[in-house]
Amino acid sequence: MSVYVALLHHPVFNKRGDVVTTCITGFDLHDIARSCLTYGVKKYYVVNPLPTQRQFAERIVDFWSDQEALEFNWTRAEAFKLIAIKAELEEVIAEITQAEGQGPKVIGTSAKPKSGVMSSEFGELSSEMKNSDTPYLILLGTGWGLTDEIFGKMDVVLPPIKGPGDYNHLSVRSANAIILDRLLGR
Amino acid sequence: MSVYVALLHHPVFNKRGDVVTTCITGFDLHDIARSCLTYGVKKYYVVNPLPTQRQFAERIVDFWSDQEALEFNWTRAEAFKLIAIKAELEEVIAEITQAEGQGPKVIGTSAKPKSGVMSSEFGELSSEMKNSDTPYLILLGTGWGLTDEIFGKMDVVLPPIKGPGDYNHLSVRSANAIILDRLLGR
Repeated sequence: MSVYVALLHHPVFNKRGDVVTTCITGFDLHDIARSCLTYGVKKYYVVNPLPTQRQFAERIVDFWSDQEALEFNWTRAEAFKLIAIKAELEEVIAEITQAEGQGPKVIGTSAKPKSGVMSSEFGELSSEMKNSDTPYLILLGTGWGLTDEIFGKMDVVLPPIKGPGDYNHLSVRSANAIILDRLLGR
Repeated sequence: MSVYVALLHHPVFNKRGDVVTTCITGFDLHDIARSCLTYGVKKYYVVNPLPTQRQFAERIVDFWSDQEALEFNWTRAEAFKLIAIKAELEEVIAEITQAEGQGPKVIGTSAKPKSGVMSSEFGELSSEMKNSDTPYLILLGTGWGLTDEIFGKMDVVLPPIKGPGDYNHLSVRSANAIILDRLLGR
């Protein structure tokens, strides 16, 4: 099973509904990489169109890439090996297609129910993934959510993660952990 | 169902196996509070014996407690209402006992299998919780894990969260999200 994760910083909404590019958050590198390695994800793409933002992330990744880092904290160093920094989603899809010999099925996630898109339950998609040779790419949004332009590129969208109440404003780090556990953890 | 979460910063191991007190991490306040509110946790205790560390956390909690914060970002402000800062686990247990009229069942978590403790599977404990009037307190460790002194206070310990491989070094924020989803999310 070949599963990839991409964290997108553009095009996303800010809280006023404007389409923006968000900054890369250091904890998104650490936490999501560690979850990805735990659940056997092949590569974790951090996607941001701003060169200075990519340089910032590259600098952190470089810090964790040498022998000293491996000795200082091997669990971080191992997780950081999964990270690849890209400018655009298209580059991510092209790289996966090249590596796998076929394009990935693109899985979306959203904190709000989406209409007009093909949806799948977690259990159903989990079974499908375990019995498939197709690579999968899970897209995560930042800010106040991905725009419809990105939802239009998804093959399937998972339902929002809900608890007993109405509040479901998980961090993207927590949402990613739960999504990987539901799809790949049992 | 009454479920509480406590994040302990002492006594925990550092990577050399010394017993230390860890610092409070800002993202642990945000991410764990948001996950707790999503899954209906009644209170999220941040426990640290160092007064300056508690002051640091109080300052962040205060920032998110006024009307301006609610207007700036209500999803954070609502989540921060769940946070209570304490010096010791005993205070947490006493407060829950006072509020609930009975002491909590203490649930431990560990990234490594523990011997000599009563263990429970996630599904089993999840069913028990849904049919019980007992309050539950989930303990989370920081650093390189909780000491045996704390494991001795637990009524039951959950198995490590595992993916397909051997690496399971999740952040405490990700581990908490998965634990709450497995226990309270279906």
